Amino acid sequence: MKKRIPVLILGLCIILACSAPPADTLTQISTIDALIAGLYDGQMTCDMLKTYGDTGIGTFDRLDGEMVVLDNIIYQIRADGSIVTPAGQTGTPFASVTRFESEKTESIDSEMNFKAAQAWLDRIVPNQNLFCTIRIHGRFPLMKTRSVPAQDKPYPPLAEVSKKQSVFEYENVQGTIVGFRCPPYVQGVNVPGYHLHFISDDRKKGGHILDFEISGGICDIDLCHRFVLILPADKDAFRSVDLSIDRSSELEAIESAPDAK
Amino acid sequence: MKKRIPVLILGLCIILACSAPPADTLTQISTIDALIAGLYDGQMTCDMLKTYGDTGIGTFDRLDGEMVVLDNIIYQIRADGSIVTPAGQTGTPFASVTRFESEKTESIDSEMNFKAAQAWLDRIVPNQNLFCTIRIHGRFPLMKTRSVPAQDKPYPPLAEVSKKQSVFEYENVQGTIVGFRCPPYVQGVNVPGYHLHFISDDRKKGGHILDFEISGGICDIDLCHRFVLILPADKDAFRSVDLSIDRSSELEAIESAPDAK
Repeated sequence: MKKRIPVLILGLCIILACSAPPADTLTQISTIDALIAGLYDGQMTCDMLKTYGDTGIGTFDRLDGEMVVLDNIIYQIRADGSIVTPAGQTGTPFASVTRFESEKTESIDSEMNFKAAQAWLDRIVPNQNLFCTIRIHGRFPLMKTRSVPAQDKPYPPLAEVSKKQSVFEYENVQGTIVGFRCPPYVQGVNVPGYHLHFISDDRKKGGHILDFEISGGICDIDLCHRFVLILPADKDAFRSVDLSIDRSSELEAIESAPDAK
Repeated sequence: MKKRIPVLILGLCIILACSAPPADTLTQISTIDALIAGLYDGQMTCDMLKTYGDTGIGTFDRLDGEMVVLDNIIYQIRADGSIVTPAGQTGTPFASVTRFESEKTESIDSEMNFKAAQAWLDRIVPNQNLFCTIRIHGRFPLMKTRSVPAQDKPYPPLAEVSKKQSVFEYENVQGTIVGFRCPPYVQGVNVPGYHLHFISDDRKKGGHILDFEISGGICDIDLCHRFVLILPADKDAFRSVDLSIDRSSELEAIESAPDAK
């Protein structure tokens, strides 16, 4: 019997190793256009989401705040500014995660605003056709974020909710930017270009980034050449959404603040 | 030593079971827009492609014909009308496959043309937002297909190649339609709507379907709620393609014959 235990452990290890997604894989739950249309019900639990990656962003059941996944911990940044680590059974209607393995590290030594930082990232990661996971730990003279409040049914579309979003302006904060640069062909599926969230070192400040200024830090990136899209388990709700509409201008209005640089 | 052999076999079985993609998964190599732009070099071998599925469609290294994957056999329908089962090391620049498990079977008892068949499929598989794999075995009074010839570098764009395509019109042929209906949000990534290939029972006729009439048969469908996109291994070639252009009208011209109904 004793001899069988190492064999069982080996078997379990093989199963765990095989069930994890391969490296350089970005896994996404649902589509951005389904979220824009108001599909806010959780489609996967946070516990399950973590089996697909340790780093990423998203939102929660009923659109209850912004998600940051960092070092295998999921943070929920609520519209009242509070930040919690939600229960493993909490659902997510939309999220993107990866097993982060830095393949390039660059130090940031000069001040940059949001726009300059995006141009700088474009230069250090020149392949615009792959998915790119971004982690920037730094010092931010300004970090402007937003979060959204939980919604009740019938869910209003995201453009309506974003009018009631909470906007936070933090000064001289230290923390981590987590997010993705997605290729242009994800339109309708994810956000083409940059989609970044933030969480402070003290885990008390964060949200979906609207604007920032960085004075210094370290940027790590990880390119993904494999994209896994897991469509909503709630097939009836997903079926009823019209996903043939071009929602790109709606998305642009939602993703940025009216006065964002 | 003898006792270890069953353990090793068990281990191998576990590895094989775990490495296969989960059910209801559509796995795709590269993007349709990269193919349209002229990325015809093989990015994955046929042997590797078969580990992702036993049913599907695509093309081959240098755009050398149309691919049908049926019952775990890959068929290559060349522009000269010949059909071969290519060597396992033959590459594919673009293909989509799934492990086909029929979840709905419908018999076709009345005559339908291509357009009517699409409307009929829309009715029997009402969820337009999921990926749907289609297999129709039937009798076809008309089957009109095309294939494309192998190209030399520098590769011309697909719209140029399709002007030199071979068109085949078969009458009273029996065989299988294999293909997909993709949701609208795959624009730029795959073909929104129907993309179907054909192979006859005697494996001597086939190609990318331009038009058909069916008099009877059996239709099996399999919905996929998981989509895996594997981007080209040749990152330099993939990086250089401008994937921010809307190529949907170009695709429409390529996918259909000028006189297709």
